[in-house]
Amino acid sequence: MKTSRQPSLIAAVLFSTAVFTGTTARASQPLPSWNDGQAKQSIVDFVAKTTQTGSPDFIPQEERIATFDQDGTLWVEKPMYAQLVFCLDRVGALVKQKPELKDVDPFKTVLSANRAAIAKLTTPGLEKILAATLSGMTIEQFQAEVKKWLATAKDPRWKRPFTELTYQPMREVLAYLRAHGYKTYIVTGGGQDFVRVYAEQIYGIPPEQVVGSMGGTTYGYDHNGKAILSKDPKLLLLDDHAGKPEGIHLLIGRRPSAAFGNSTGDQQMLEYTKAGDGARLCMLVLHDDATREYAYGPALGLPDSKVGTFTQALYGEAQKQGWIVISMKKDWKNIFAFENNSLEPSTRGTAASH
Amino acid sequence: MKTSRQPSLIAAVLFSTAVFTGTTARASQPLPSWNDGQAKQSIVDFVAKTTQTGSPDFIPQEERIATFDQDGTLWVEKPMYAQLVFCLDRVGALVKQKPELKDVDPFKTVLSANRAAIAKLTTPGLEKILAATLSGMTIEQFQAEVKKWLATAKDPRWKRPFTELTYQPMREVLAYLRAHGYKTYIVTGGGQDFVRVYAEQIYGIPPEQVVGSMGGTTYGYDHNGKAILSKDPKLLLLDDHAGKPEGIHLLIGRRPSAAFGNSTGDQQMLEYTKAGDGARLCMLVLHDDATREYAYGPALGLPDSKVGTFTQALYGEAQKQGWIVISMKKDWKNIFAFENNSLEPSTRGTAASH
Repeated sequence: MKTSRQPSLIAAVLFSTAVFTGTTARASQPLPSWNDGQAKQSIVDFVAKTTQTGSPDFIPQEERIATFDQDGTLWVEKPMYAQLVFCLDRVGALVKQKPELKDVDPFKTVLSANRAAIAKLTTPGLEKILAATLSGMTIEQFQAEVKKWLATAKDPRWKRPFTELTYQPMREVLAYLRAHGYKTYIVTGGGQDFVRVYAEQIYGIPPEQVVGSMGGTTYGYDHNGKAILSKDPKLLLLDDHAGKPEGIHLLIGRRPSAAFGNSTGDQQMLEYTKAGDGARLCMLVLHDDATREYAYGPALGLPDSKVGTFTQALYGEAQKQGWIVISMKKDWKNIFAFENNSLEPSTRGTAASH
Repeated sequence: MKTSRQPSLIAAVLFSTAVFTGTTARASQPLPSWNDGQAKQSIVDFVAKTTQTGSPDFIPQEERIATFDQDGTLWVEKPMYAQLVFCLDRVGALVKQKPELKDVDPFKTVLSANRAAIAKLTTPGLEKILAATLSGMTIEQFQAEVKKWLATAKDPRWKRPFTELTYQPMREVLAYLRAHGYKTYIVTGGGQDFVRVYAEQIYGIPPEQVVGSMGGTTYGYDHNGKAILSKDPKLLLLDDHAGKPEGIHLLIGRRPSAAFGNSTGDQQMLEYTKAGDGARLCMLVLHDDATREYAYGPALGLPDSKVGTFTQALYGEAQKQGWIVISMKKDWKNIFAFENNSLEPSTRGTAASH
């Protein structure tokens, strides 16, 4: 399938549906976007030993759980988390509803469109923006807003919808694990309700398999007496760092056998995964490819980064614990599906969603 | 399969495994423990119209969600919720760990074994007992405690393990819906971690499909540096009344198409289910069979009850909204699997868990 330069979201959705509804796993040629090496081999070995009957590491199908961080692990997180762009973009609509916010910071700064000033917004300021733009509407209104935004918003570097900036090698891992009976979950520091809107379309992961930072909802009735759930600003769980294993227990109730992340926020999820009995697979994506994507650490002397920090301490922990570090530069043949038009969808990954 | 008078928990588990791993749905004879009537017919009609290709009410398989209250809907809730019995039974072990509680109420009252005094415990007293007995240990320790208790504790009337007091007609509904592509969830006011311990064994419902009242956990490390999650007394969500649709959104993220309950605590779940587009099935079990189980309302002049209250107002709401009231007395041919030893497992319900 050829992909034009700026395909519509609908095309992207159709494309991902084509990928995820394929049914034949090409066991002879798994993970085509991966170069041969320790990272690829560790995935293939793990799947073989945990799914082949009679293997001492066999895991019954109902216990096969694999968890994936999203930002920086499944899709691009630079220069800014997609959800933060959404929230900043929503400030205009918010101020139309509540004009009294127009002259109040941090909303005033966002409306100024002064990039330098926006970049300097403090955490409390950003939290105010998140709380104000992610609450005060019904679940359905919020989902409609996110869908509308996804259809038009573009990443500043690739000029493509955010939903096209998923990592093809990781989509192949999702499909490969599912083809072998694993249930795949997203476990993200991002908003659970936000990621649920597109996770099924772009990753084949249904809403009930998205664990994220959880806002409260309030049950009530609209003016016709119809039952509604409204999003409120109360944070029930920040699904990052220690919150990731806590969120996994809350929503899944089982310990994962495999976990994938890319930053210090994923360390506890990997520790919790590794602490279980039997075979475990823990992997961290290292962004060391400034040409094809971004390079940041500060591990291994890569540039430091506030977003998606991969410290040298985390690198040391990975070596100590036997977690595999994936080098984006060396381990990934392609990064995005749109890079390599010669690949047919059928070779990009297979199997229906689990 | 013959069931002896007091079969072991292992036998009960083997039995339920046999029920839930059958693979052929007997479409010609669904719901054998149900008498013919509006209740049975409404289930059969709903499944037919939502799962037959070309039907105007067809629901795609990934959107087929059915939610079930547990206490009083799937198993006996009288004279006391099983979980409350567990908590009271745990007070002895708790006091061994913390002897300073021995002379302090409400623990002192529970240890006195004075039934009249225990029955008079106030809500704040009971909450103290729940908080103290359901927290302060790792998830794995808690699960082991519940398993140990389930293996020995008996219901006072039937002298059988609580896990045998499930309603056979409702187990058939679970299996029938699953055989038609529905994902079945428990949505209970009881503790999510408590119900998850046995839901897979007795209902074929895996941990990730149990929504219940949610306690917080705290991530940390044991003395060997191994990652652990400890249960803490903080309540994240009380999954009852308005908390049920809120819990459904939090864990599932989709609106159910079918919902089953038996008390005022289920009203909002049924309202939320009904408020969606397309075909919906909402049902309430009415306990009107004092001989075979219990009779309580106070709807229709049945005796009033603090546990599992079914008010006349709820009955009126059911009539107004088109929710079906199931009469335990008239609609159910059998109530428990152990009543009718002549039934072979294969006729009792089918289909693997979803």
